[in-house]
Amino acid sequence: MDDATLRRFADVIVGFGANVQPGQIVAVSCEPGKEFMVRAIAASAYRHGAKFVDVQYFDPWVKRARIEHASEDDLDFIPDWHGKRLLALGEVGAARVGLSGPVAPGLLEDLDPARVGRDRFPALKEAGKVVNDRTTNWTIAPCPTPAWAQLVFPDLEAGEALAQLESRLLHVCRLDEDDPIAAWRSRADFLVATAERLTGRSFDALHYEGPGTDLTVGLLPGHSWQAARFERADGLVHMPNLPTEEVFTSPDPERVDGSVTSTKPLVLMDGTVVRGLRVRFEGGRAVQIDADTAGETLRTICDRDEGASRLGEIALVDAEGRIGALDTVFYDTLLDENAASHIAFGQGFPFVIGDESRDRVNQSEMHLDFMIGSEELRITGITAGGERVPVLVEGHWGI
Amino acid sequence: MDDATLRRFADVIVGFGANVQPGQIVAVSCEPGKEFMVRAIAASAYRHGAKFVDVQYFDPWVKRARIEHASEDDLDFIPDWHGKRLLALGEVGAARVGLSGPVAPGLLEDLDPARVGRDRFPALKEAGKVVNDRTTNWTIAPCPTPAWAQLVFPDLEAGEALAQLESRLLHVCRLDEDDPIAAWRSRADFLVATAERLTGRSFDALHYEGPGTDLTVGLLPGHSWQAARFERADGLVHMPNLPTEEVFTSPDPERVDGSVTSTKPLVLMDGTVVRGLRVRFEGGRAVQIDADTAGETLRTICDRDEGASRLGEIALVDAEGRIGALDTVFYDTLLDENAASHIAFGQGFPFVIGDESRDRVNQSEMHLDFMIGSEELRITGITAGGERVPVLVEGHWGI
Repeated sequence: MDDATLRRFADVIVGFGANVQPGQIVAVSCEPGKEFMVRAIAASAYRHGAKFVDVQYFDPWVKRARIEHASEDDLDFIPDWHGKRLLALGEVGAARVGLSGPVAPGLLEDLDPARVGRDRFPALKEAGKVVNDRTTNWTIAPCPTPAWAQLVFPDLEAGEALAQLESRLLHVCRLDEDDPIAAWRSRADFLVATAERLTGRSFDALHYEGPGTDLTVGLLPGHSWQAARFERADGLVHMPNLPTEEVFTSPDPERVDGSVTSTKPLVLMDGTVVRGLRVRFEGGRAVQIDADTAGETLRTICDRDEGASRLGEIALVDAEGRIGALDTVFYDTLLDENAASHIAFGQGFPFVIGDESRDRVNQSEMHLDFMIGSEELRITGITAGGERVPVLVEGHWGI
Repeated sequence: MDDATLRRFADVIVGFGANVQPGQIVAVSCEPGKEFMVRAIAASAYRHGAKFVDVQYFDPWVKRARIEHASEDDLDFIPDWHGKRLLALGEVGAARVGLSGPVAPGLLEDLDPARVGRDRFPALKEAGKVVNDRTTNWTIAPCPTPAWAQLVFPDLEAGEALAQLESRLLHVCRLDEDDPIAAWRSRADFLVATAERLTGRSFDALHYEGPGTDLTVGLLPGHSWQAARFERADGLVHMPNLPTEEVFTSPDPERVDGSVTSTKPLVLMDGTVVRGLRVRFEGGRAVQIDADTAGETLRTICDRDEGASRLGEIALVDAEGRIGALDTVFYDTLLDENAASHIAFGQGFPFVIGDESRDRVNQSEMHLDFMIGSEELRITGITAGGERVPVLVEGHWGI
């Protein structure tokens, strides 16, 4: 990526995604291997008037050393200053920037999955509070790395693979537009308006129909659909994900029935790929989980706690989205989940549900998205009175 | 460096230098570019029973972005969680490992020195307390990097330069011994015994004589000489520096008189090199500072505060030391200060002085070592009664 492009990319992440304000502390988190982007982001943040850019490089190879050698009892220990720092970022109203994209695919693959599962670092239990308090303006954006490029394009030579990945990331982040921020404003306006129309319909359920899929998902009274923009409690707007193409809500975790078949591979945190996933739900619970690959791993994950086998999110992605059109598996949730309509096992989003039903949003320690959208999928809204309204048909909005 | 050598090196740093104990949190600090050593240290620490290895990568390019772009008023700001973390490391009795060696020589050279001077991060004001409380067991050791190798060997091809640097670092860290820890124990025993003999003599002053040098340095009542090993308050022994060759104390900052000429280049924090340094002291104060290069920069630094133009440390290095024998300028204080006898402007070490005189130890925000030792230097101890005792003559101990 040339310097001018890198600078433009960083400016979009900082000035539009996180929407950094003068005088803010800006926390940046990512793995070693993304220094070039971190430094461009730091320079952009300071040009936007940041008071201090606080970078944390999380080294997955150090995590590997821990899982290999640490005592079993210590594997879930995290020094308390990490959580305190995160809470302090909330207290001072900091901006936060995360950079997605794998730097070491498969690094933990040969280790004992039970030990891998116990070490949650750098995930922090305090993260939920900071997000729900809406005290920080934050964004997550992708950063290309050579290892990621080889994962996505295993048949290409290293330099060509990286060039291809960069070009796709720039496209889906709309950096190939003359005015990327204007392009994002326009797309975000459309997604937000769509979300508002969906909220206005107050559907009682959605019905998904397609090859291998016949699924009814109940919705909670007082639910709202969200998209693209978040607002801090004080009204400052930011874009949590760049790119983002989805309109989403949290469903009723007790009213999901029928069968669904994934339309794209699901990539787990440790790089394991689940293909050909088929799930049957009864009363909200996934009672049967099968897959062509890694079905057993997924069943173990969905057995972790009561909410892990229930839905926490449903998200709609239309055919205008740039990611799905590339027909590329990125092995990175930020991108892959925005490629097609998806649903997610695990933790839901209480903040999208009104007071009356907020307690009913699914709870879990995990959140796992999988893609079920395709050109053949038809999603129909069902009103409380039983009326059926086309919502998303062949990727086009019906409402 | 092959994997087996790297593992041995890490084991010496962790198991002997920091002396990591089972159940300890181990904080590791260094710049990006030293990941290979950090990961070996993490693995070694976990094999030694560490509870958690907490790595902080400090990115000097982010510092550069700050100095280039941040508001003047914010340049000395540091979020309080950095200091709180350091104090917490003391409270839990953590181990600490730092890795020296430049990763970006000259990176700040073209920036406004006044702005560079205001940004002290990652230095923290809390560091003094944690060192003086002696609550952590810590060590600093060198880590080779390509940029450092090119700085030390500018005429060699990159691979050869790195190989030469690695080979010298392994030599001075005694990794080329069959049993490096035994070699270090033996050397440390000798240095500690020498320090104890010096302490026992309770000299009133040292007299330095050599080409361009005729300097008398007064010593404080109740001073002690230290070397090689530190003890935590609870008695746990560690080696703050690997390598270490010096025997040191803090002098009387008001009784330094005469002239001294440096015998090796002095490398400032930002990479500036001061050559041919000549200093004249009167009543403890440097009243004249001249140099063949960068004299003005050094004069500015020594004008920073009252203590910056007085001595905080004197250190003796004998001819058995491995660094001086290489006749290599490493551009890194950890190594260069152990190459030859040296003295330092600025902050002294109160913990080496007994209660009666501790308040008289020099105080400053800076500490700057410069080498004055050579085979032609003669150091003589002067007792309170005026007796003259050879201390270090042509690199050999007289006591």
